[in-house]
Amino acid sequence: MRLVVSFSVTPIGTGSTSLSKYVKAAIGVLKRRGVAYKLGPSHTDFEARDYAEMADVLREVSDTLFAAGVKRIGVSVKIDDRRDKENSMESKLGSVF
Amino acid sequence: MRLVVSFSVTPIGTGSTSLSKYVKAAIGVLKRRGVAYKLGPSHTDFEARDYAEMADVLREVSDTLFAAGVKRIGVSVKIDDRRDKENSMESKLGSVF
Amino acid sequence: MRLVVSFSVTPIGTGSTSLSKYVKAAIGVLKRRGVAYKLGPSHTDFEARDYAEMADVLREVSDTLFAAGVKRIGVSVKIDDRRDKENSMESKLGSVF
Amino acid sequence: MRLVVSFSVTPIGTGSTSLSKYVKAAIGVLKRRGVAYKLGPSHTDFEARDYAEMADVLREVSDTLFAAGVKRIGVSVKIDDRRDKENSMESKLGSVF
Repeated sequence: MRLVVSFSVTPIGTGSTSLSKYVKAAIGVLKRRGVAYKLGPSHTDFEARDYAEMADVLREVSDTLFAAGVKRIGVSVKIDDRRDKENSMESKLGSVF
Repeated sequence: MRLVVSFSVTPIGTGSTSLSKYVKAAIGVLKRRGVAYKLGPSHTDFEARDYAEMADVLREVSDTLFAAGVKRIGVSVKIDDRRDKENSMESKLGSVF
Repeated sequence: MRLVVSFSVTPIGTGSTSLSKYVKAAIGVLKRRGVAYKLGPSHTDFEARDYAEMADVLREVSDTLFAAGVKRIGVSVKIDDRRDKENSMESKLGSVF
Repeated sequence: MRLVVSFSVTPIGTGSTSLSKYVKAAIGVLKRRGVAYKLGPSHTDFEARDYAEMADVLREVSDTLFAAGVKRIGVSVKIDDRRDKENSMESKLGSVF
């Protein structure tokens, strides 16, 4: 794995301040795809081989929210892209302990 | 166009606090591809048809920096994805005046 | 100036996909305070002396949106904090030309 | 508590791709202050009463890195600011299960 991707999705104009059902829908995409992921209070992290795989995941999350009736979404993504050594969520977390 | 993408790239471990040559390399990618873009102090915005095109641009920027000797990069991306009306950098900017 | 701050605010649960009136309200805060700022398609940049001044600006933007009836907001902030040389929006933009 | 703050700090120009010692220094600040926090692969989340407290934490993290010899840092922050109900890292995580 080369990319560790941390993202959050904010539906805009939904009329409710509760976002949990959308977060659940996004997590459902990661589960169905079998992607390694880690859920945090503000972001969900996952691992991707490359930018194309990352885009596939984000597109499918987006499609799922639009299918649920959302008309506009904001997506924040932070990518850690390194080629000098293996990259993973565990190595990133483990290195600080 | 459906996506307005705002991104910034931070090379890690370069030994210099100056990032301008990397920003120039990233802008070069956008110019070569003929993508509509807008340069700001902290982010560069561009328009993409879909997530696959967005990923192509980011991958090419990444490849360019690694080819220039960078070993690790952090990429921040903010995506505005709306399907209720045409989306563009100009419409986003224009709507607030 | 030491900090260049790039931010965006997303109101959550407003019932409308249009955010322009909230962006206008945020810009109003920057104007009233006399802060140097630059509006982009996805983010607004401004300069701050320190973290306390940055927080004052963000708090006032937040207060303004809550006073306008918003119940929840997401705020994204990117800070460039350097002490090796003068920092400004113009120096950041100018260095890539 | 009203704000849940998710942040990451990237030192620029350090000459090494390893960032773990800087993450440790940042975590040290949160521990010393007694702030509730949660460490993730890409971001650290913490809770703050208001924007002033958030700024104090970020300033102290910044001071710690500059004291360790870093000359420039990039800080990414995502703030969840809601006043319709109690906000916490646990409530955000719990609502999706």
